[in-house]
Amino acid sequence: MGGELAFIDRVRRLAGEPPAGQVWIGDDAAVIDGDLLFATDALVEGVHFDLSWSSAQDVGWKALAVNLSDLAAMGGTPRAAVAAIVVPPGRPGLADEVARGLVEGSRRWSCPLVGGDTVQGLELAVTVSVVGVPSAGGAVLRSGARVGELVFVTGEFGGAAAALRLFQDREARIASEGLTGASVAELGERLRRPEPKLGAGRAAAAAGASAMIDCSDGLAVDLARLCHASGVGVRVEASLMPTAIGATLDDALHGGEDYELCFTARDAARVKRAFDHHGLAAPRAIGRLRAGSLDLVMADGAVIPLPEWGWEHKVR
Amino acid sequence: MGGELAFIDRVRRLAGEPPAGQVWIGDDAAVIDGDLLFATDALVEGVHFDLSWSSAQDVGWKALAVNLSDLAAMGGTPRAAVAAIVVPPGRPGLADEVARGLVEGSRRWSCPLVGGDTVQGLELAVTVSVVGVPSAGGAVLRSGARVGELVFVTGEFGGAAAALRLFQDREARIASEGLTGASVAELGERLRRPEPKLGAGRAAAAAGASAMIDCSDGLAVDLARLCHASGVGVRVEASLMPTAIGATLDDALHGGEDYELCFTARDAARVKRAFDHHGLAAPRAIGRLRAGSLDLVMADGAVIPLPEWGWEHKVR
Repeated sequence: MGGELAFIDRVRRLAGEPPAGQVWIGDDAAVIDGDLLFATDALVEGVHFDLSWSSAQDVGWKALAVNLSDLAAMGGTPRAAVAAIVVPPGRPGLADEVARGLVEGSRRWSCPLVGGDTVQGLELAVTVSVVGVPSAGGAVLRSGARVGELVFVTGEFGGAAAALRLFQDREARIASEGLTGASVAELGERLRRPEPKLGAGRAAAAAGASAMIDCSDGLAVDLARLCHASGVGVRVEASLMPTAIGATLDDALHGGEDYELCFTARDAARVKRAFDHHGLAAPRAIGRLRAGSLDLVMADGAVIPLPEWGWEHKVR
Repeated sequence: MGGELAFIDRVRRLAGEPPAGQVWIGDDAAVIDGDLLFATDALVEGVHFDLSWSSAQDVGWKALAVNLSDLAAMGGTPRAAVAAIVVPPGRPGLADEVARGLVEGSRRWSCPLVGGDTVQGLELAVTVSVVGVPSAGGAVLRSGARVGELVFVTGEFGGAAAALRLFQDREARIASEGLTGASVAELGERLRRPEPKLGAGRAAAAAGASAMIDCSDGLAVDLARLCHASGVGVRVEASLMPTAIGATLDDALHGGEDYELCFTARDAARVKRAFDHHGLAAPRAIGRLRAGSLDLVMADGAVIPLPEWGWEHKVR
């Protein structure tokens, strides 16, 4: 669905402008009356996962994880989740496996599963919705970034895309023989069982992050969304990109599904202190916001426009 | 999915018991920290609707309505909704039509659509989640009914089931020639565009309702659920059942999809006053709670066990 962004824009116009202090359609999560975050995301068989490389329990885990990643990107803390599971006929036990993964994640991330619905359908689909509370300073939106600030990212990028290639493509598996078994297993976990960066989101909020987004569709396209929402340009250094073992720069920029956070802040020392305080590895600065265009500086010094495409355009 | 109730029980055991003051899986909506209601429901093509008799806009409307009916059954008021829409390929405009129905309902019921997700899939499926606030006296659960109280229902029953029969079965259409065109159109609207009884839910809460449920699967099975959750029996009078024009007693008892409310309260005069105060027609008393079994008194005076089956067991 390459037209998803256009669709979101049409729905936003239909729904109308929210009152002051509220954020409706268009950020990672909605902000209602300043005190409640609300988000939803669906995982559908054949689009987001394949049961040949992901167990139904993994799907339950991931359906919750990707929603909590939306709360993380606002600097929020989860309060509760609900889940609707569409299950194909003749596959007994599938809904139970999904529920097991949902509950496993809900304990891990202190987000009780409080309700749900199951329906029969043609393919397995899991829609989770979550509510949460913003950080003390208020939700961190996509739109608050200012010229001159640094761009930070948590963790490593491209691992989920590299794992998908390994699962789908025998040639890639052969070419990747340089990877150890442990590295391949770790890549697989990144794709099947992403970890929402809830602590990092709260640390970034505490460090005065001006804008934040979770990198679900790919760092390049998600960073571009943040820049467009904030009305700023950016210069990103390819050589500073933290790329996962086994992943290419293309995977890191466009692969998506990593569920790391990208945020902007003025004060690098304050960011480091806040992450230290939360017991987390310091995020990496990969570029700086500026007026004008969105540029990527390649390793050889060549400057190209930041390529604004990501996961959604490759698969559908 | 006849085993849905058993599945819900298994998930409830997996998820564990909620802390005091919270209600998780098993009521119409979850109650979190006493101040937040949270519910989710999915509508799937071929299970809940058919695009031969329902427009995609109707589906959007109904997906929101059935969720708000869950809030109504707690005596609650909506705060916001999110929606995930799974759309089959090659049907352009379908997601927009669904969104139009969602937004139409969201304006009607003062429940802003604040976020969503769209994904490609094999069949149209719309999952809506809603948050709301309980009434001043707290959420009305299924489990608070006591022996001696009256059983009330809002509106009329069986209309949606009668409409479904008209849409699906030519014989039924011929047999129904006694109906006027206006009656047939009204029946169709009951199925395609149900109205969540938000005002009635608040009126019931204000009248001291001890327990409440929305009749989505059928009055008989939903009332039985309320009785089981409360640990009480009931005697219901078939002759007092408010049955829609064109509907049979079976439609009214087991048809489901009416989205009327069933609640229990001690004081009929107080109930009438509260509904008057809200400008609503008084609900009808159809029976009384008692210790022991769940019984239905037929029009000829015969007493039979209340037949505890409903919509979910007939269709799947």
